[in-house]
Amino acid sequence: MRPAILSDPEQMLALVEKQKREGKRVGLVPTMGALHDGHLSLVHRCTEETDFTIVTIFVNPTQFGPGEDLDKYPRDLQQDTDLLSQFDVHAVFAPDVDTMYPPGASTSVMPADVAKPLEGALRPGHFEGVATIVLKLFQLIPADVAYFGQKDYQQTRVIQQMIEDFHLPIDMVVCPIVRDEDGLALSSRNSYLSTVQRQQAAGLSRALFHIRDLAGSGNLEAASLLKAASQILADASIDQIDYVALVDKRSLEPVQRVDENTIAIGAVRIGATRLIDNVLLAQ
Amino acid sequence: MRPAILSDPEQMLALVEKQKREGKRVGLVPTMGALHDGHLSLVHRCTEETDFTIVTIFVNPTQFGPGEDLDKYPRDLQQDTDLLSQFDVHAVFAPDVDTMYPPGASTSVMPADVAKPLEGALRPGHFEGVATIVLKLFQLIPADVAYFGQKDYQQTRVIQQMIEDFHLPIDMVVCPIVRDEDGLALSSRNSYLSTVQRQQAAGLSRALFHIRDLAGSGNLEAASLLKAASQILADASIDQIDYVALVDKRSLEPVQRVDENTIAIGAVRIGATRLIDNVLLAQ
Repeated sequence: MRPAILSDPEQMLALVEKQKREGKRVGLVPTMGALHDGHLSLVHRCTEETDFTIVTIFVNPTQFGPGEDLDKYPRDLQQDTDLLSQFDVHAVFAPDVDTMYPPGASTSVMPADVAKPLEGALRPGHFEGVATIVLKLFQLIPADVAYFGQKDYQQTRVIQQMIEDFHLPIDMVVCPIVRDEDGLALSSRNSYLSTVQRQQAAGLSRALFHIRDLAGSGNLEAASLLKAASQILADASIDQIDYVALVDKRSLEPVQRVDENTIAIGAVRIGATRLIDNVLLAQ
Repeated sequence: MRPAILSDPEQMLALVEKQKREGKRVGLVPTMGALHDGHLSLVHRCTEETDFTIVTIFVNPTQFGPGEDLDKYPRDLQQDTDLLSQFDVHAVFAPDVDTMYPPGASTSVMPADVAKPLEGALRPGHFEGVATIVLKLFQLIPADVAYFGQKDYQQTRVIQQMIEDFHLPIDMVVCPIVRDEDGLALSSRNSYLSTVQRQQAAGLSRALFHIRDLAGSGNLEAASLLKAASQILADASIDQIDYVALVDKRSLEPVQRVDENTIAIGAVRIGATRLIDNVLLAQ
């Protein structure tokens, strides 16, 4: 079915409150649009588990740093809506920037300590932007449950911690990464890659899965696992490595020996395109 | 009637959600206890304007700075509950510190620019603590309307701005300052004052009302008005003046000439006791 498209916050809130008064379970899938099968897996799960599914499409400027790809980030509301029409999505909320950030708005969320390493260290202000927009969306769309993708793993930790710390009355579901056949995690930014770069890009997931396989065979020393991963990246001609790390899946602190609570997580740049990925070692 | 006293967040949220499902208008009065007639004026108004009144009593540690009066801040839940029993208060929420700040909780609210001058400049972190606890209370107690006192004027601006910036689905009512016969604004901290200090303390409101009276007679120059106020403070032997200022009531930026949007606002210390007050010039 074709979802209703809303851009007015008051209409959005009123629509959700009406559903809740009728006893419906409301689900939310926040996105920045440029939808791919990863997003659609969240949407599908939301429609399966709730009575009323809302997808938000908003390219949030405050989570992009200077020199990042805010301007070129792909935007196509028509195509996104077409894709969503395959599912029982009841409403799409697609506000404009001034609606979410009225002139003079300056209150923000200072995210939890878990926002500090990895992406937080490399993208100052990124998680402040993420946490702030997600809090706003949770207020305008007081859903029972929100769906996020594991690909942005640190983001899921930041948001989960915000939910706990602020006592936000919403549940969070983290859905598995959807990958292409060669293992590359789906991402809206994959569209930036040339054919050659696209082949290189698969090296990142290959490196992370290699860590998981070695750990499964009993090699639990982080230093040794990371060395093996860096060889895979080198073999794929990936030489701009922001980080590849083995960290506790809750605190995101580095570990010396991996266990079932460890996650292998990485960020690399292929040309001008930055890609992230992660693999839970317990899987 | 004697209110129910709750300390469990889940019970609190469930109770509010039940009222809302029944179509009741829910009102919230957040306090730090040590209730006086100023608080009770908020409570009274809330009971008049809503169907279900909740008063929170929580001495929020994160809004006290090092060396401030967190430890000696007056606490007497029994007496507070007795006072509230005069009104139709349905529930008192009095959580403990670990409930509101579980170990490891580290997400906070970075308040709006309006938090920067005046109290914000003198009490670093104060409004971050205020905004964070108020956001948490708004989540646990999703009321339709919350009541705050004008005495903490900058606080009301910080919270109003947070409500706007985060799109919080709650209305805010700011209630007038309640004063003793000599003009001193009621405050839980007045209990710290000796008899002599209590007489001195009235000088602060006298100075602010003097500004208002002079402005009403056509003296609109801020510098001249502030000079007149400082004479009144000197006459009252108030010599520890944190600030007395004439600022725009929305932005809290200083003004050169006062108008109907100006507020006279001050903070002084009498011995070890810090007192704040304000007077809207348009009143």
